[in-house]
Amino acid sequence: MIVILKEKPESKQLDNLIAWLADRGLTPHITQGVHQTILGLVGDTSRIDIGLLQQMDIVEAVTRVQEPFKNANRKFHPLDTVIPVGTADIGNGSMTVIAGPCSVESEEQIIAVAQSVKASGAKLLRGGAFKPRTSPYAFQGMGAEGIKLLLAAKKETGLPVVTEIMDISQLEYFADVDVIQVGARNMQNFELLKQLGHINKPILLKRGLANTYQELLMSAEYIMASGNENVMLCERGIRTFENYTRNTLDISAIPALKTLSHLPVIIDPSHAAGISKFVAPLSLAAVAAGADGLIIEVHNNPACAKCDGMQSLTPEQFQNLMQNIALVKQAQTQCK
Amino acid sequence: MIVILKEKPESKQLDNLIAWLADRGLTPHITQGVHQTILGLVGDTSRIDIGLLQQMDIVEAVTRVQEPFKNANRKFHPLDTVIPVGTADIGNGSMTVIAGPCSVESEEQIIAVAQSVKASGAKLLRGGAFKPRTSPYAFQGMGAEGIKLLLAAKKETGLPVVTEIMDISQLEYFADVDVIQVGARNMQNFELLKQLGHINKPILLKRGLANTYQELLMSAEYIMASGNENVMLCERGIRTFENYTRNTLDISAIPALKTLSHLPVIIDPSHAAGISKFVAPLSLAAVAAGADGLIIEVHNNPACAKCDGMQSLTPEQFQNLMQNIALVKQAQTQCK
Amino acid sequence: MIVILKEKPESKQLDNLIAWLADRGLTPHITQGVHQTILGLVGDTSRIDIGLLQQMDIVEAVTRVQEPFKNANRKFHPLDTVIPVGTADIGNGSMTVIAGPCSVESEEQIIAVAQSVKASGAKLLRGGAFKPRTSPYAFQGMGAEGIKLLLAAKKETGLPVVTEIMDISQLEYFADVDVIQVGARNMQNFELLKQLGHINKPILLKRGLANTYQELLMSAEYIMASGNENVMLCERGIRTFENYTRNTLDISAIPALKTLSHLPVIIDPSHAAGISKFVAPLSLAAVAAGADGLIIEVHNNPACAKCDGMQSLTPEQFQNLMQNIALVKQAQTQCK
Amino acid sequence: MIVILKEKPESKQLDNLIAWLADRGLTPHITQGVHQTILGLVGDTSRIDIGLLQQMDIVEAVTRVQEPFKNANRKFHPLDTVIPVGTADIGNGSMTVIAGPCSVESEEQIIAVAQSVKASGAKLLRGGAFKPRTSPYAFQGMGAEGIKLLLAAKKETGLPVVTEIMDISQLEYFADVDVIQVGARNMQNFELLKQLGHINKPILLKRGLANTYQELLMSAEYIMASGNENVMLCERGIRTFENYTRNTLDISAIPALKTLSHLPVIIDPSHAAGISKFVAPLSLAAVAAGADGLIIEVHNNPACAKCDGMQSLTPEQFQNLMQNIALVKQAQTQCK
Repeated sequence: MIVILKEKPESKQLDNLIAWLADRGLTPHITQGVHQTILGLVGDTSRIDIGLLQQMDIVEAVTRVQEPFKNANRKFHPLDTVIPVGTADIGNGSMTVIAGPCSVESEEQIIAVAQSVKASGAKLLRGGAFKPRTSPYAFQGMGAEGIKLLLAAKKETGLPVVTEIMDISQLEYFADVDVIQVGARNMQNFELLKQLGHINKPILLKRGLANTYQELLMSAEYIMASGNENVMLCERGIRTFENYTRNTLDISAIPALKTLSHLPVIIDPSHAAGISKFVAPLSLAAVAAGADGLIIEVHNNPACAKCDGMQSLTPEQFQNLMQNIALVKQAQTQCK
Repeated sequence: MIVILKEKPESKQLDNLIAWLADRGLTPHITQGVHQTILGLVGDTSRIDIGLLQQMDIVEAVTRVQEPFKNANRKFHPLDTVIPVGTADIGNGSMTVIAGPCSVESEEQIIAVAQSVKASGAKLLRGGAFKPRTSPYAFQGMGAEGIKLLLAAKKETGLPVVTEIMDISQLEYFADVDVIQVGARNMQNFELLKQLGHINKPILLKRGLANTYQELLMSAEYIMASGNENVMLCERGIRTFENYTRNTLDISAIPALKTLSHLPVIIDPSHAAGISKFVAPLSLAAVAAGADGLIIEVHNNPACAKCDGMQSLTPEQFQNLMQNIALVKQAQTQCK
Repeated sequence: MIVILKEKPESKQLDNLIAWLADRGLTPHITQGVHQTILGLVGDTSRIDIGLLQQMDIVEAVTRVQEPFKNANRKFHPLDTVIPVGTADIGNGSMTVIAGPCSVESEEQIIAVAQSVKASGAKLLRGGAFKPRTSPYAFQGMGAEGIKLLLAAKKETGLPVVTEIMDISQLEYFADVDVIQVGARNMQNFELLKQLGHINKPILLKRGLANTYQELLMSAEYIMASGNENVMLCERGIRTFENYTRNTLDISAIPALKTLSHLPVIIDPSHAAGISKFVAPLSLAAVAAGADGLIIEVHNNPACAKCDGMQSLTPEQFQNLMQNIALVKQAQTQCK
Repeated sequence: MIVILKEKPESKQLDNLIAWLADRGLTPHITQGVHQTILGLVGDTSRIDIGLLQQMDIVEAVTRVQEPFKNANRKFHPLDTVIPVGTADIGNGSMTVIAGPCSVESEEQIIAVAQSVKASGAKLLRGGAFKPRTSPYAFQGMGAEGIKLLLAAKKETGLPVVTEIMDISQLEYFADVDVIQVGARNMQNFELLKQLGHINKPILLKRGLANTYQELLMSAEYIMASGNENVMLCERGIRTFENYTRNTLDISAIPALKTLSHLPVIIDPSHAAGISKFVAPLSLAAVAAGADGLIIEVHNNPACAKCDGMQSLTPEQFQNLMQNIALVKQAQTQCK
């Protein structure tokens, strides 16, 4: 960490700063320049509150040289992390597609969707049991019962299942779930992240609506620091001023997260766009940009089949998309 | 709710839509215009997923006429809610100041701060025991022990205490806490909100970094719908492109939330600015705009007294600010 | 346009509103519902200030049924606009690549770059002559002299040239320029847009840093309403809270703008990312998502060749990227 | 400027970087640390493209120690700039109110508004003649004729006038205008800014919808570097995800801009909120936070008087607000 001091700092303030750093186990290397004094902090600066340092009267600017995350940092783990789930190896350069309905609604529905997405090439089944809803009056999901139905679909099709946890107290129901999803709204639910670090299951960690890459990686760090290295990062759209789409898919997150970290990157085009006809172009874009996987909403609920346009794809649309994904993935693999 | 259909809708699609609405207990009033068909939906539309409706092929646009929140809605509760805490009546047109350190660090520290902020006119004591930190390597707070120390300071000074809960599992430690704070990162931790609806304590609900007024009110609705009507709304800065300040204080939240809702509005200038010298002007702005209260960071930790510039005020700065707040509040009260 | 009135409007206010609409040549169709009154406005509502209407005391909500843009609207022009420039037909489903240096620096430089990008398959040459710079102390470009050098490169290679105009007063220098670029900062420089509507050259209109799709299309409308239909829309990244990349490329702009409009959509991955190693993945993503073209920075300036990492690609990197673009474009063309 | 290099830089790359800096007249002071190499750049770094430097392969991070603006920088001009206009001294600690209609519509209208706002205590008259409108089909203002009417109102009342320029070509009409306004959309119309630097009139420079404080000050720098030091900075709301208000008033801009610069800071609550009932609380907030002035929309157009709720105040509402502003200003003046 580099600390640039204001011109001509008071020696008393400088002594105070050095003492404050010493309290935190850091000895600064002082460079007295013609125009400014620079402190180079060597050692573990991850415990330093950079904001607090920046606010000090004698400090002009602070620059972190090392990122504050370690386990998730590619600098310390150059090789890509590969997470095996069922027949998929997520992160090894292949494209894994996770598909299923937004919510589990019935055994028939989830089994039917599971069979159709498997037939189209999906490697994992997704489905919401515990649903985070903005409104307390909206359908909150089937809960534990929904997980039972997902597991029934798994038994029927062999597809591993991915479903979201909203609170530590629900953990008991996830014993047979293959991948636990942490939703965007819980990305900084640190108590939940810590608990998920103590279990031995892959975690699909979704980026918060207004969180930076670094904050996402710090949340991954919470899980990894507690011992669970199996984290997948998921970009699902960020909140911007543009409201034509529900959120703005940050496609740059793919090369950015892969530069900063060794963890797999999954893209969720369904929640990003909120418009079913945009799911295909955004999926193909993610494949071309080098994503490790996609998580796509597919339903064949007769009641909802009436409403064509929602963000979910029909099984037919999904089957067609999978063929297109294969074409683009093949081209992307040939790229030098 | 008003649904405007695309020009010349297929009758089959229209029948499907009407059936879909009927499934949800709604009978549309159809207006056949020269250029478009309009459906007026009467009844409880709060259960309708507006996004899903907007995505339907035959739908051009949807407009919600009633807001989706009820208990928090001023339309149904014209009178301001007043929440009594200790000697304060929050929401009755007076200005309640909540003050204290970011974190509880020791008994001496918290008692000393409590005594000084009380002497300056603060009506409640704040202090962090369970701390949400972006980094797993940063100080996580004293936890349950910190709450014990807060209660010791309460015993010493008579000031009611406000402190943050991060997870339902911590609830047991909050039995003697006067006001439970839900932090910005947990504003949409719906399981936590539901639980807080079942207890009988005032809740200080902070707005999320990138959440709209309506989303904040929907989170308040989660608490109120479960039976706890004592919710205070807290604006603490939103995330924007401007990084000179840590966050951007949305001062318009005061008149906006008071228009939409009857709940008290508290402003947190310390976290919004992240710069101690900005706390005073932002506090005075909030008073002038009609806020019901302020929550301000004050510390007198000798170790940190070395670092002048952090977001916390010294007891002296706070005492001076309280005098200025009184001057501006008096003027604001005289405004017609 | 649909205007929903508040419950039980005062008849005097309603009369005033109807008179106000009449002043603007609109006769409302009034629907008296059980719970609300709805006005359906038929006719040309593009002149109505929707904000003003929304602010009226008796108005609950306003919904625009027709978009406020006409010439740029796909509803009225279902077929894609194709703009021929040199050997390229921009908008016909093919992928046109525009390449060149950020700034024209010398005749040798621009000719060398022109020859190399042409050899790699670029169809147009870009280069900055008049440069919008945040700082008045930064290099402001070679101006008119820079355009002369671009035209020399065009003479040498046959590549049509694209360069930016910053002010109407510069128009005289653009007589032989093939495509005039309007930069993001001038997207709402309406006087400039009006003037560009009176000339007969293709305009490359860049989206402003914080402008919506609709605002971009309204700016295109300024040009088209003045008579010039040859507008290309360019997404070059928007401003968000994420600062790891210079801007956030809004990849959804491709399907969104193609849904709303018939105009070609060009992507600028160089300015969006601001990081040269991200230009390739973002370019391939744009191709897969169905963009009509790309505008990419390439330089071979020996002085700058020293600084590897800037946002520009070297001729070698660009040649390799063009091969990859061809692979992905071929796959995208096969997609159903 | 401080440049931190990556660990173990190649000596060839380091030589290239040093040569590149030498080309720009800079000799780095090299500090060889145990873990990193730091270059301290002394001299005029305002011409250095920091982005370009940050992209270099061997560069880990760059920190600017001096802000890139000079004339607008409080560091070099500690005393507040005071700009006398008519009977007002803007920037001397008093509160100057500029008021008038959004658009000049007729001689009767502008004279009537001028007389009423003067009677209520406004020191300057505002009114739009050249109107930047998102839609080419919306009223574009009366243009030169509108300025004539503003000057007639000035003759009648003695109030100096403020009106917006949209293009250099309009400058001829501004000979007798007292303060020239640059709108948010033109904040980075650099050719216009340069020209305004060559005239000797105060400029009211509005912050762009998505521009940082530094970018605003760099635009002021364009004007000042060309010789015109009379610049007033105007915060008028920024674009965020919150759409209940038209824009989000960034109240922190007051202490922030006054810390960074010596120029007066004016707040525009009318455009920020877009809701007339919010103009009063936001105005009082700005006064309490220490703004030098306010620019407020007031109209008494009978046609528009019908539409109560727009962002403009009626003369009666404005008169009442002026009394409240005086009360809060008096309190703010007493604050220590």
